[in-house]
Amino acid sequence: GGLNMARGIHSYVCDPSIGLNPEQQEIQTVARDFARNELYPKMAEFDQKEEMPKETLKLAGEVGFGAIYCHEEHGGSGLTRFDAALIFEQLATGCTSTAAYISIHNMVAWMIDTYGSEAHKKKFLPGMAAFTLRGSYALTEPDSGSDAASLRTTARRDGDHFVINGSKAFISGSGDSHVYAVMVRHEGKPGPKGIFCILIEPDTPGFILGKKEKKLGWNTHAARIITFEDVRVPVSNVIGGEDQGFNIAMSGLNGGRLNIAACSLGAAQQSFDLALEHLKVRKQFGKALADFQWNQFKAAEMATKLVTSRLAVREAARHLTDNTQHKVAMCALAKLYATDTCFEIVNQALQMHGGYGILKDYPLQQFLRDSRIHQIIEGTNEIMRLVIARDVLTNSNALTG
Amino acid sequence: GGLNMARGIHSYVCDPSIGLNPEQQEIQTVARDFARNELYPKMAEFDQKEEMPKETLKLAGEVGFGAIYCHEEHGGSGLTRFDAALIFEQLATGCTSTAAYISIHNMVAWMIDTYGSEAHKKKFLPGMAAFTLRGSYALTEPDSGSDAASLRTTARRDGDHFVINGSKAFISGSGDSHVYAVMVRHEGKPGPKGIFCILIEPDTPGFILGKKEKKLGWNTHAARIITFEDVRVPVSNVIGGEDQGFNIAMSGLNGGRLNIAACSLGAAQQSFDLALEHLKVRKQFGKALADFQWNQFKAAEMATKLVTSRLAVREAARHLTDNTQHKVAMCALAKLYATDTCFEIVNQALQMHGGYGILKDYPLQQFLRDSRIHQIIEGTNEIMRLVIARDVLTNSNALTG
Amino acid sequence: GGLNMARGIHSYVCDPSIGLNPEQQEIQTVARDFARNELYPKMAEFDQKEEMPKETLKLAGEVGFGAIYCHEEHGGSGLTRFDAALIFEQLATGCTSTAAYISIHNMVAWMIDTYGSEAHKKKFLPGMAAFTLRGSYALTEPDSGSDAASLRTTARRDGDHFVINGSKAFISGSGDSHVYAVMVRHEGKPGPKGIFCILIEPDTPGFILGKKEKKLGWNTHAARIITFEDVRVPVSNVIGGEDQGFNIAMSGLNGGRLNIAACSLGAAQQSFDLALEHLKVRKQFGKALADFQWNQFKAAEMATKLVTSRLAVREAARHLTDNTQHKVAMCALAKLYATDTCFEIVNQALQMHGGYGILKDYPLQQFLRDSRIHQIIEGTNEIMRLVIARDVLTNSNALTG
Amino acid sequence: GGLNMARGIHSYVCDPSIGLNPEQQEIQTVARDFARNELYPKMAEFDQKEEMPKETLKLAGEVGFGAIYCHEEHGGSGLTRFDAALIFEQLATGCTSTAAYISIHNMVAWMIDTYGSEAHKKKFLPGMAAFTLRGSYALTEPDSGSDAASLRTTARRDGDHFVINGSKAFISGSGDSHVYAVMVRHEGKPGPKGIFCILIEPDTPGFILGKKEKKLGWNTHAARIITFEDVRVPVSNVIGGEDQGFNIAMSGLNGGRLNIAACSLGAAQQSFDLALEHLKVRKQFGKALADFQWNQFKAAEMATKLVTSRLAVREAARHLTDNTQHKVAMCALAKLYATDTCFEIVNQALQMHGGYGILKDYPLQQFLRDSRIHQIIEGTNEIMRLVIARDVLTNSNALTG
Ligand SMILES: Cc1cc2nc3c(=O)[nH]c(=O)nc-3n(C[C@H](O)[C@H](O)[C@H](O)COP(=O)(O)OP(=O)(O)OC[C@H]3O[C@@H](n4cnc5c(N)ncnc54)[C@H](O)[C@@H]3O)c2cc1C
Ligand SMILES: Cc1cc2nc3c(=O)[nH]c(=O)nc-3n(C[C@H](O)[C@H](O)[C@H](O)COP(=O)(O)OP(=O)(O)OC[C@H]3O[C@@H](n4cnc5c(N)ncnc54)[C@H](O)[C@@H]3O)c2cc1C
Ligand SMILES: Cc1cc2nc3c(=O)[nH]c(=O)nc-3n(C[C@H](O)[C@H](O)[C@H](O)COP(=O)(O)OP(=O)(O)OC[C@H]3O[C@@H](n4cnc5c(N)ncnc54)[C@H](O)[C@@H]3O)c2cc1C
Ligand SMILES: Cc1cc2nc3c(=O)[nH]c(=O)nc-3n(C[C@H](O)[C@H](O)[C@H](O)COP(=O)(O)OP(=O)(O)OC[C@H]3O[C@@H](n4cnc5c(N)ncnc54)[C@H](O)[C@@H]3O)c2cc1C
Repeated sequence: GGLNMARGIHSYVCDPSIGLNPEQQEIQTVARDFARNELYPKMAEFDQKEEMPKETLKLAGEVGFGAIYCHEEHGGSGLTRFDAALIFEQLATGCTSTAAYISIHNMVAWMIDTYGSEAHKKKFLPGMAAFTLRGSYALTEPDSGSDAASLRTTARRDGDHFVINGSKAFISGSGDSHVYAVMVRHEGKPGPKGIFCILIEPDTPGFILGKKEKKLGWNTHAARIITFEDVRVPVSNVIGGEDQGFNIAMSGLNGGRLNIAACSLGAAQQSFDLALEHLKVRKQFGKALADFQWNQFKAAEMATKLVTSRLAVREAARHLTDNTQHKVAMCALAKLYATDTCFEIVNQALQMHGGYGILKDYPLQQFLRDSRIHQIIEGTNEIMRLVIARDVLTNSNALTG
Repeated sequence: GGLNMARGIHSYVCDPSIGLNPEQQEIQTVARDFARNELYPKMAEFDQKEEMPKETLKLAGEVGFGAIYCHEEHGGSGLTRFDAALIFEQLATGCTSTAAYISIHNMVAWMIDTYGSEAHKKKFLPGMAAFTLRGSYALTEPDSGSDAASLRTTARRDGDHFVINGSKAFISGSGDSHVYAVMVRHEGKPGPKGIFCILIEPDTPGFILGKKEKKLGWNTHAARIITFEDVRVPVSNVIGGEDQGFNIAMSGLNGGRLNIAACSLGAAQQSFDLALEHLKVRKQFGKALADFQWNQFKAAEMATKLVTSRLAVREAARHLTDNTQHKVAMCALAKLYATDTCFEIVNQALQMHGGYGILKDYPLQQFLRDSRIHQIIEGTNEIMRLVIARDVLTNSNALTG
Repeated sequence: GGLNMARGIHSYVCDPSIGLNPEQQEIQTVARDFARNELYPKMAEFDQKEEMPKETLKLAGEVGFGAIYCHEEHGGSGLTRFDAALIFEQLATGCTSTAAYISIHNMVAWMIDTYGSEAHKKKFLPGMAAFTLRGSYALTEPDSGSDAASLRTTARRDGDHFVINGSKAFISGSGDSHVYAVMVRHEGKPGPKGIFCILIEPDTPGFILGKKEKKLGWNTHAARIITFEDVRVPVSNVIGGEDQGFNIAMSGLNGGRLNIAACSLGAAQQSFDLALEHLKVRKQFGKALADFQWNQFKAAEMATKLVTSRLAVREAARHLTDNTQHKVAMCALAKLYATDTCFEIVNQALQMHGGYGILKDYPLQQFLRDSRIHQIIEGTNEIMRLVIARDVLTNSNALTG
Repeated sequence: GGLNMARGIHSYVCDPSIGLNPEQQEIQTVARDFARNELYPKMAEFDQKEEMPKETLKLAGEVGFGAIYCHEEHGGSGLTRFDAALIFEQLATGCTSTAAYISIHNMVAWMIDTYGSEAHKKKFLPGMAAFTLRGSYALTEPDSGSDAASLRTTARRDGDHFVINGSKAFISGSGDSHVYAVMVRHEGKPGPKGIFCILIEPDTPGFILGKKEKKLGWNTHAARIITFEDVRVPVSNVIGGEDQGFNIAMSGLNGGRLNIAACSLGAAQQSFDLALEHLKVRKQFGKALADFQWNQFKAAEMATKLVTSRLAVREAARHLTDNTQHKVAMCALAKLYATDTCFEIVNQALQMHGGYGILKDYPLQQFLRDSRIHQIIEGTNEIMRLVIARDVLTNSNALTG
């Protein structure tokens, strides 16, 4: 059947373990096994039930995927961004949508680990690491998407509380999360400098969950509008400086972009392996599909796209791990290239399956639906172009103009 | 909301009425109004319910879309293939999947009208024209897709009956159809010449419906495997000559390809119009999305793709209407070009909607899912290349080798 | 050898005579024969000598290609824009660069025929029709290319003369032309309304020819900078209204764009036919290149591109012939699509020739060099996007912003 | 003017020194300076004169570019393949065609260094390292291009000589070379095993140089057909085993492919830098071209292509340096990806220059012409697909079928 994990294609130029040291290979293997055993057999079910697979997430927490690049002190796995990219790539071979949510959750854990107080860390990180607590990231608003700095959710200081009003859109994991990292604006302070990040728990009065959106993909976790009506949150819930919210949100996104690119890679890798297997097994016109030159050459093109996507993702991971000067541009570049190119790989793999590619008994259509979202999420691929252009055309003005 | 029909963009270079004579424009208007009133408001519901909208089809029958290019004698609308392409384009703006099923149904009606006996016509055509009877086309088998001539469903002659065994896969409309045009093989006669076409009704003993497939798109009608276990069908149910089944199937497909291409055109047109509107209305960074040059130039590229797709579809329609020498290649060419290119338009329109593009409250994701299937159906786009290559490289051998 | 005209591939889906009426086919045949006999055998020589083939142009004049869509009164051929597009397509199969110059010359002839006085017509048109007089079109300046309306060549009124100063760049045919249609600006009148068109003859004092540019292609006619130093031209040499120069230049360009698109079509057609022949004749790995499926499918893609390009060109020709509302956008669309797409066809045909494709003994590299220019000339393909965007996004402002 | 070396764009995400260690950066700097000082100022002249710049090559020899990855014992520079790729990338920024010839020369030096006898090495390597002796590689024949194993140049043993008959086509550097590494076939021994490699000097009787081919690009060195008429060559001139010629030729090509890919990278880098500068300096519509969003986003896409091409080239260089299991596929993959993608970058950079891009006063058109050849040379990009497909579809048969 279509849902068996592609049998190990041990040795080819697309092998994801090429170039890794033994430690990295071990991390990769753990993630691969998790994907193979816990995700892939259930990815269709997760998708069709449209529910968060909470028990599976706890298992992910057990192997260390709840706070991958957080310090070990509060339960984090203490791995690098490079390691994390390896993990997300593998997880996505098993269920791309779930891997993407794990990425968002990790982004929030990392924000708390990096910018939070000791109290925040103690309160949230052990549970987040174990995936008994889940996090969401809330930046986007109905009228503020690509132009995140124009957000209008307002925080009015009232004693040692902030009173928050406004609404956030497309919040992944919402409804099932225990902590929301919310970007809000000091009343009356326009521009990026007016923004700060505050942790909000969903049982706070005035925190209103919107309906669960029906979506093309990413169905293993909900997206909802969240409305804040006079939500009172202690000032101590602020993480990072009070004018640092936009920077925090953006630096979280560097990792988010890298991880999402890695998720596309996993979707593409698994789709490619399935296609190779299908080409060898399926016969038409008296021979295997793999014996038709067109399919051979298309497989070569897919391999080329897969290898170059992986190189881009790993280069960005290195830049982020090493905190280089061009990390922002490299993460954007990897996100643009890998999410566009891996979508093409998945789409071509689907095509190679003929009619079977569109059946839900086969995973191709799900990889297509899930990875399509990556071209929009964490900054659209148009915004990635803008970020890269800024790097290469520094002296030019009006890049958003 | 996203589900309002794009308001009339009366006068632009993509206007589908450009170049039509008044009679054709009238046909187009009827189809457009039908799409706008009966399909578009319900396309999301049809999709999510995953049921055939039988009452809506009857309304389509009333306006003459049940047997569009059949003779008027038995209830057909007596229109040309060119007219039909205009109609399918418009219907698909309202619900691409339903338009596609209407195309398949019309293909069957046309086969009966062209190759059937007077008795067949009397029995089926008035009902098919009115869409109180529905038809399905059964060529594909689990092991015979692109290589349709290798089909193995067997017909053994037994007196004035054929006894039929085998199975057909991916049969659109199955479960809800009253008549199936089934391609079967005379027992022991290999090759295309061994194939004939026989009408089978679903209440015949041994006619077994498989489970309803869950699919990426085309959810407004079922696809199923049908198994024949000693199904006895009168010899008189054969349509066309007893060695003509493959030719009949293929000549049906010329029209099928044209219509499917027209359906992609409709999906692209509606997606494009929605995107234009969204670009003008949605603001980010203090201005309308339409004020960003990238979006302007991308809109220009979409317009270029839309106009050239339409030109290809209409050229193929003219070839088919005029029964020209190159009609087979032109229908394949239009199918290849329009289904690939219009998918790109839809996908770009989705991208222009940002996160909203992936929500089921907006139609973009549905146009994407539905039109993705067109690159596979009625002969994959790889098989289209093969058909075109045959035309341009006639003296070359081994085109399937 | 590579330089023999592709032998007639009489009957395939790319046949350029499909869809034409007998009269149009006759026009096409004349142009085809001229290309085959007078241009193709010498195209490499024209290119390498880098000289205008003046005698050949006179032969073109004899068959009526010097003033194709001018009235017959003064020697024009009185044909439609549609006919002209047929002619340029055919001429370009024989020598794309020469066909392109013939297009520019015809643009000038048409401007004189349409906007000139009776005296202008008498003086220039008979010779231009016979190609004993040659014309050039001078709009571009060193600092004013895409933004043609910013041109700075100045005309100061002095009695019944204008005194002209400034310079024009990239003027095709310059050095060999007898009449230049020059766009100049009334001193002190900024904006498009300040521009008018004046005919200048090269023997006028102060008319200074720059050096002959060395170019990638279009080597069969010179491009030069022309400098005007106090050039005195009679006021009677103005054609069109005194604030109409920009409109005249632009309306000339509609035809120019259409013709250039047709020239790309011819280059692509000939390259495609050569490739088909090469695929059939050349053997590697024990079989004809045409027996490799990749090549077959690529040939099918080329055919698809060729047919759709032709449909676009002819649709634009119809719009221009019928002077429709959307003629500007349709000419831009055809130019954008056909010049981009035909370049791809030529490039793929070159690739199919392997190493032979890059040799000057074979015409592929010349078609590549010549047709590359079409993506820049007569308004770049970016400007075409801008023109199309204007049509489809009418209510949006700041399209050049 | 267009021919000034792009001023140092020191710090952007496309900086070729990113990720290199200090030693590698030093090697890169040497090559960069050589390109900047010795090649770039003369690349147009080299191209237009169509002569090998022998004196410049000697200067290249002086800095160590004549035998880059040969052992130091006989004058080689003893660098790695990775270092070599860095060098070719830089050289190609100055003159792509000359860099490509230096690559071919180095391939021959490496073959002698690796497979030659002590006597061969003594005789040729010091001079080749100094570029006072030049080498050519002769595999291709008029009827044997992609299918190199079908070559028919015959060697008949006659005492301690071989008598050689046949002809070789497209031999780069021929006419100016002192030693030719020629692949020939033992008389009567078909298949790859019948091939061996023999060194031939051009003054040997019967060695006949054909006419210098006129070409699209690579004009700084000649390509010719060479005919062997009873050329007597000592048996001791054989390098490698007597049935190893095909293997030798192929292993030489791995490096050749890598280097050619690096040459495309250099062409693209320089074209991109020129384009960035032009975008900033050139004004139209009252602002810099860099202020138009389309150009910004296109620049971002070019940067993405450049970075991913570089990653692919360097990954292949690492595989070759480390002699990995998948080096053949990785070199093919890098060659396919980088030569195709860098051609797109160059072509887009040309487009960004508008009309200036096609003038020979600007280098864009030359980079275009030179790098176009890389998609054909050292195995066409179709053959690259075949090589990659073999790696990823190992169990499939008939990959050339
Ligand atoms: C499934 C899903 C899950 C999500 N989860 C989260 C989440 O957990 N937390 C969160 O904060 N957000 C989340 N988002 C929101 C996501 O980040 C935004 O959708 C995305 O940033 C785009 O914003 P938008 O949808 O408002 O599109 P818009 O910003 O309106 O963009 C619409 C189109 O215009 C283009 N565009 C915008 N600006 C420009 C410009 N200057 N130049 C050219 N083109 C431009 C865009 O690229 C896009 O094509 C999610 C979205 C989706 C779809
Ligand atoms: C939603 C849906 C509805 C359908 N409805 C109907 C219906 O109503 N009636 C009906 O009869 N059929 C129907 N079909 C079947 C459809 O026509 C087939 O799926 C299609 O023809 C492809 O066949 P396949 O799925 O077996 O793919 P395969 O033939 O197995 O093809 C797999 C892949 O191999 C490629 N390939 C095949 N042969 C070659 C070759 N020689 N060279 C290169 N590549 C090749 C294909 O292009 C494809 O990419 C439907 C299919 C779908 C998905
Ligand atoms: C061989 C040749 C022959 C020619 N013959 C003639 C002739 O006979 N008569 C004549 O008048 N002219 C002639 N031209 C000039 C030609 O029309 C111009 O080259 C062309 O219009 C482009 O102008 P430019 O070269 O100044 O480029 P620019 O206008 O400087 O453009 C440079 C780049 O910027 C892009 N660009 C410009 N504006 C925008 C914008 N708003 N948004 C986004 N991108 C933008 C362009 O598309 C291009 O990619 C010729 C040119 C060539 C090359
Ligand atoms: C400027 C230049 C310099 C050169 N220098 C040298 C040199 O120094 N030494 C040397 O030995 N050679 C040299 N070559 C030759 C070069 O290696 C060959 O041109 C190249 O290998 C292609 O061979 P071909 O030209 O015979 O094309 P063909 O092999 O005839 O190929 C023609 C087309 O068919 C395609 N094709 C071939 N086989 C298949 C297949 N199985 N499936 C699908 N498509 C296929 C090819 O990809 C190509 O598109 C040079 C070539 C050029 C142009």
